[in-house]
Amino acid sequence: MHRSRLGPGREFELINRAVAAAREAASTPRNGLLAVGPGDDAAITEDGWAVGSDISVEGVHFRRSWLSDREIGFRACAAALSDLAAVGAIPQAVLLSTALPRRSVDWDGLAAGVAEAARRAGAVVAGGDLASSPGPLVLDVSVLGRTSRPLLRSGARPGDQLWVTGPLGAAAAAVEAWESGSEPEPRLRSAFARPPDRTREGTVLGQAYGARAAIDLSDGLLADAGHMATASGADLILHESRVPVATPVQALLDPRDALEKALSGGEDYELLFAAPPPRAEGAEPYGRRGSRESDEGQDGGRGAGGEAGCGPRYPKRVGWVRAGKGRVFLDRGDCVVRASELRAGYDHMRTARECSES
Amino acid sequence: MHRSRLGPGREFELINRAVAAAREAASTPRNGLLAVGPGDDAAITEDGWAVGSDISVEGVHFRRSWLSDREIGFRACAAALSDLAAVGAIPQAVLLSTALPRRSVDWDGLAAGVAEAARRAGAVVAGGDLASSPGPLVLDVSVLGRTSRPLLRSGARPGDQLWVTGPLGAAAAAVEAWESGSEPEPRLRSAFARPPDRTREGTVLGQAYGARAAIDLSDGLLADAGHMATASGADLILHESRVPVATPVQALLDPRDALEKALSGGEDYELLFAAPPPRAEGAEPYGRRGSRESDEGQDGGRGAGGEAGCGPRYPKRVGWVRAGKGRVFLDRGDCVVRASELRAGYDHMRTARECSES
Repeated sequence: MHRSRLGPGREFELINRAVAAAREAASTPRNGLLAVGPGDDAAITEDGWAVGSDISVEGVHFRRSWLSDREIGFRACAAALSDLAAVGAIPQAVLLSTALPRRSVDWDGLAAGVAEAARRAGAVVAGGDLASSPGPLVLDVSVLGRTSRPLLRSGARPGDQLWVTGPLGAAAAAVEAWESGSEPEPRLRSAFARPPDRTREGTVLGQAYGARAAIDLSDGLLADAGHMATASGADLILHESRVPVATPVQALLDPRDALEKALSGGEDYELLFAAPPPRAEGAEPYGRRGSRESDEGQDGGRGAGGEAGCGPRYPKRVGWVRAGKGRVFLDRGDCVVRASELRAGYDHMRTARECSES
Repeated sequence: MHRSRLGPGREFELINRAVAAAREAASTPRNGLLAVGPGDDAAITEDGWAVGSDISVEGVHFRRSWLSDREIGFRACAAALSDLAAVGAIPQAVLLSTALPRRSVDWDGLAAGVAEAARRAGAVVAGGDLASSPGPLVLDVSVLGRTSRPLLRSGARPGDQLWVTGPLGAAAAAVEAWESGSEPEPRLRSAFARPPDRTREGTVLGQAYGARAAIDLSDGLLADAGHMATASGADLILHESRVPVATPVQALLDPRDALEKALSGGEDYELLFAAPPPRAEGAEPYGRRGSRESDEGQDGGRGAGGEAGCGPRYPKRVGWVRAGKGRVFLDRGDCVVRASELRAGYDHMRTARECSES
């Protein structure tokens, strides 16, 4: 699910209200169809189909001056497929609905971008709908996948470790550059235009790590950790020193801005997942292979990154889960700060009041 | 699928081009997933799931001055579910994606309308996405259903009879009234605001009539018959005297305008289906029950309307299929006219040249 830019929480509140109303009103046994209903990244049927949709609106999620039409299609489809990654589903098919402005848009380019992102994840374009638009270009991509072992937002348990599948902050840094009138550095631009495919991680890491909970990082690490914390009814603790700030973001921004982009920028489409700690090194399904972190002895000898596709440094352990009321805290070494305070404004961070919370 | 108003054929051409490109480029065995790919109203997976989507754009498919927000939601969802009816699938779940203008829209009303239409067809709202829109209100409804006996556009065979599940022309007459600045008569307005649910017909009539081909009437009887004719590689002959013009359209419009609305108006969301003629009356699964037409002895003793829900007068037989090149003809009693000529302009109808084609 994209960041909606309707204001924090509003998207979720509205959708959940509609769903609650529909469930109350419905009285057919077919309600049993949904093993996992809305609120998660995708709905999951009892026989293991996962469905989701993701809408991209010109002027809200992208501008046509930022990206080629093919990149717009690619990004819209990759963002939608990210919902399947987050529930551990293997993509099968996508549907593309488009509202096309009357002024020149290269529809073939859009469709080719959608098809390319679908193909990268092993899915086919199975149809869709097309209409003209008197306003912005709108793409809605619906996705269909299969899962035998769904990952849910609500699955995090006290004692679990928290992992992230890749570097954060580059897409948000690209948006900031565009919005300030400059062209972003190529690595930043690429992070926005070509979000990663984490569908393989969603399935492989569920088995390798015994992961039970995941969410895709579209709203930003702090906000999405908040969704997981709320759904799981547990507190999530993130270690600031372990937040994986993307290399070009570290290189180009001052350290505080870089960290802020990684924590709150959003649109990275990596996964945050929760998994129980390993019982014993020998029992690890993927052992030490491929992980620089596990070579450093920091992550309990894990590292399925090579197998999963997210690279040798990832997934990276970023925190843990403890019993609590569904809150998120940032452990800064010298103090622990509640995320809701951080999100009120980053400069606000260093005050003693906030550091008193732990 | 809604009439796209991009110009005849353009929607289909663009979608089919994208699909062809995706299929060429894709090389994974997962392409076998789709038993029925795009080009039909919904794509169908090998294990019997049907998926489709339908986009509704303010200023293209509706105006907010015409309908309440709840009606807009209802209509968008009913139109999408019509794609499932057309393939003989039983609706299970819908996803609602919305681009919401910043000016006041009653999102709860929209969502309640979507949920009501879903509930009417036995489906649940399984999630979706929500974003703000800098322009028009856009709703994209994706639908998920099950089918064990898909109806396809391509299934019509020479000798089949053609049937329509309900009266035509009222929705288009409502749009014409609004566009001329007046409020439509209540029955016309209702036909546009609350399209019928033909999902039960799509499944029941497939069994009762042995139907093999169907399409929903969103673009208009002539245009949609054209899609079926093209897909099936056969000619469709419609009898002008049997075209079911909706009663209020007959009452309010002059006869030629009324017939034009029924033939070309679109947005009725009834089904056109093709079924082989009955072998013997005694073999008919639903016998004579419920059909006024079968009492009149015109339709071979059929009439599953009572069981299917579309009423005792329906389905109504409107024509037949013959070997041919994928064209549609209108049999006017004294002459047979090719539909492509009719659609070029209705006044054009009575010329001798057109009547020479048969």
